[in-house]
Amino acid sequence: MRPFLFFEGDNAKCNDWLKANAFSKIILLCDANTNGFCVPKLKQQIKAFRHAELIVIPQGEAYKQLETVTYIWGEMDRVGVDRYSLLVNVGGGVVSDMGGFAAAIYKRGISYINIPTTLIGMLDASVGGKTGVDFHQIKNHLGCVHHPMAVYVNPDFLQTLDQRILQSGISEAVKHHLLAGNLTEQLLSSLDAFYTSSSIQWSLDFKLSIVEQDPHDLHIRQQLNLGHTIGHAIETASLQSDHPLYHGEAIWLGLLIELRISELLFNYPTNDRHLLLAKWKEFFPNLSYNYQANELRTFLLHDKKNMHGLRMSLLRDKGDCGTGIEVSETIWLEALQSFQTVNNV
Amino acid sequence: MRPFLFFEGDNAKCNDWLKANAFSKIILLCDANTNGFCVPKLKQQIKAFRHAELIVIPQGEAYKQLETVTYIWGEMDRVGVDRYSLLVNVGGGVVSDMGGFAAAIYKRGISYINIPTTLIGMLDASVGGKTGVDFHQIKNHLGCVHHPMAVYVNPDFLQTLDQRILQSGISEAVKHHLLAGNLTEQLLSSLDAFYTSSSIQWSLDFKLSIVEQDPHDLHIRQQLNLGHTIGHAIETASLQSDHPLYHGEAIWLGLLIELRISELLFNYPTNDRHLLLAKWKEFFPNLSYNYQANELRTFLLHDKKNMHGLRMSLLRDKGDCGTGIEVSETIWLEALQSFQTVNNV
Repeated sequence: MRPFLFFEGDNAKCNDWLKANAFSKIILLCDANTNGFCVPKLKQQIKAFRHAELIVIPQGEAYKQLETVTYIWGEMDRVGVDRYSLLVNVGGGVVSDMGGFAAAIYKRGISYINIPTTLIGMLDASVGGKTGVDFHQIKNHLGCVHHPMAVYVNPDFLQTLDQRILQSGISEAVKHHLLAGNLTEQLLSSLDAFYTSSSIQWSLDFKLSIVEQDPHDLHIRQQLNLGHTIGHAIETASLQSDHPLYHGEAIWLGLLIELRISELLFNYPTNDRHLLLAKWKEFFPNLSYNYQANELRTFLLHDKKNMHGLRMSLLRDKGDCGTGIEVSETIWLEALQSFQTVNNV
Repeated sequence: MRPFLFFEGDNAKCNDWLKANAFSKIILLCDANTNGFCVPKLKQQIKAFRHAELIVIPQGEAYKQLETVTYIWGEMDRVGVDRYSLLVNVGGGVVSDMGGFAAAIYKRGISYINIPTTLIGMLDASVGGKTGVDFHQIKNHLGCVHHPMAVYVNPDFLQTLDQRILQSGISEAVKHHLLAGNLTEQLLSSLDAFYTSSSIQWSLDFKLSIVEQDPHDLHIRQQLNLGHTIGHAIETASLQSDHPLYHGEAIWLGLLIELRISELLFNYPTNDRHLLLAKWKEFFPNLSYNYQANELRTFLLHDKKNMHGLRMSLLRDKGDCGTGIEVSETIWLEALQSFQTVNNV
């Protein structure tokens, strides 16, 4: 289940691995963006990709739909994919989620690898095997668990990213450090350190060590939801406002508020929250957070995971994350209200 | 992975099992046929089904398509399925293949059980976890492996089946006995013995013992393809003729011809083939088999499994089945030609 991890120095090793597996065919799946920049670069770096087939899908979350996967399956038919072929997902989470799903279902499962081109993809979404598409306005409503055989991480691909998208991705790394109990001011002293292979590798190894204990997300893997219960509600609310937040930005705020809940429930030390709040203002100076608690309430209670009451993953102490912890409305409303206007806190 | 097996005498046990699992919701998936006869019967027999939700799909192989599964997912949304719900597939292979697939993918996998209503379903298709739909005219082109939690077998449901469909199903039981090396004239002396719980249970246990060694069909599970390489070609050819055969009838002929190949390649004893031929004439007196070898050749070579040459599962000796055995064109043409008109052999 643990995928081979290749980094930018491993081009020859990755090429040898592809050749040794003797895939009947290699198919690159990309979107219009990654087709322009990453695919040509990849073909330069790794010989085995030069004669690969190509499937291009439209760019963006709006296309993370069954219709797009059906198009991919049709294209797989066209290029003649068999059970011994390899699908290579070149892109962000949308491409890897859909490509992983397409591979899982085609002929009851073929092999795939991920080549993430966003920071969130590199340090989180590319491993763990969760695949899927949105359906009836619900995120990842259809999907399955199918692990990639390998992940190739090349931070060079981050160069073309919009600065705001890029840095929003570090919230997933921050989450991993909170879970590991090793978040420090030193670690957050510069953004650049998060864009390096060594930082990315630490995050991937950390996530894989959790996923391996619970691949189907029944207990300990739910630790990885830290910051996401509140974060998703903020993301959804922001998408309906004039100033939508990126996923990583909403997760940063979700972490802040969930740390506050941990303080209220478990006397969790306040220094992590103070650090994240200071860094929010430093890293995201142009963003503000001013959602009404009542507004978020609607989205929180609509989340499919909260049908049996609001339960979340929460830090009980440094490096000690509980899952499925029931949080009363009094508590989460109090935490939300204390952050009503973060820039004024 | 091994499902709980309940038989017609186990109604109370099955009901207790359903209650003990405390599913948040139970949803019966059926087609127009099984909705008419089996669903009301089931609700009488097993209390826990009385307040179940119902999803009805159109009947027939023609509807084994992504569109139908998409409809099922929409219905699952409508009735409010969550991760702790149970889908109950009431029907033949088409219903269980699609229902299993719908369950595998919805919210990345919910639980399901199979209640087969055909003989093939009872003694073969209801266990093993292969799920899926046809796509672009290729059978089971999209799908995955997702095992049912339980299977409830009630031979009462066979009563309403057309006699021809019913008895065609025994070919899968015959296949299991050939693989186990225990096919006898005594066993084939009457059809009725195949419609009993004890015979069905033997087949399910035998199949499960193989599936458990190789759930993803990479080696030993391919033994279960015995008779199916030639059988599928005959089925496809027959569907284009004026006298289409049922799956089980085509498999019976496939077993006959593949036994002939075993004789040519491995000096397999001829008595099994002579027995199957005599019983073909006795059980299926109104059917004839008169396809041209050249006609079948086209379908054989078009089968997706034969892209790297014709390989099949073949008996090397009683109860000793090899998989992936390459068969030269000379040999399989000879076997086909010797059966060109079975009723004249």
